[in-house]
Amino acid sequence: MYVILVYDFGEKRVGKMLKLCRKYLNWIQNSVFEGEISEVKLKEMLQKAHTFMDKTEDSIILFKHSSQVYMDKEVIGHERSSIDVFL
Amino acid sequence: MYVILVYDFGEKRVGKMLKLCRKYLNWIQNSVFEGEISEVKLKEMLQKAHTFMDKTEDSIILFKHSSQVYMDKEVIGHERSSIDVFL
Repeated sequence: MYVILVYDFGEKRVGKMLKLCRKYLNWIQNSVFEGEISEVKLKEMLQKAHTFMDKTEDSIILFKHSSQVYMDKEVIGHERSSIDVFL
Repeated sequence: MYVILVYDFGEKRVGKMLKLCRKYLNWIQNSVFEGEISEVKLKEMLQKAHTFMDKTEDSIILFKHSSQVYMDKEVIGHERSSIDVFL
């Protein structure tokens, strides 16, 4: 399954969420990740996120698709690698 | 065509980009928009973005799909409306 994940977390928890996402998906921009992931792995990741997320403030948006083949991705402007910004 | 648009703009230009995106797409979170848009309208929007974006710093990522039908969207946690945050 191909997913695009976007999160919006409070300052105190955003670092934890970033770390978690990087274990399962590929970082593409700010708080946006994408990647191929199994249902089981995605569930596991979300369960971990639930342990520290504040549901009154934080949010996760998931776009799921059976395959990346049908999605066309285009990057305009400066493409950052995940390394130069977050390490 | 259904698109998910994520932008990362410098502080000085981010407000302009937000305003532009709101004219063409639906805001869903932070710098993330989605919506049905024609190729022509998307091109028009990107041309406008090009007039003020700094390509050494700013970036736009577009995920395009022929139809939203095949995408499954899930929101976990706090779902913000576009009004409470940006007005």
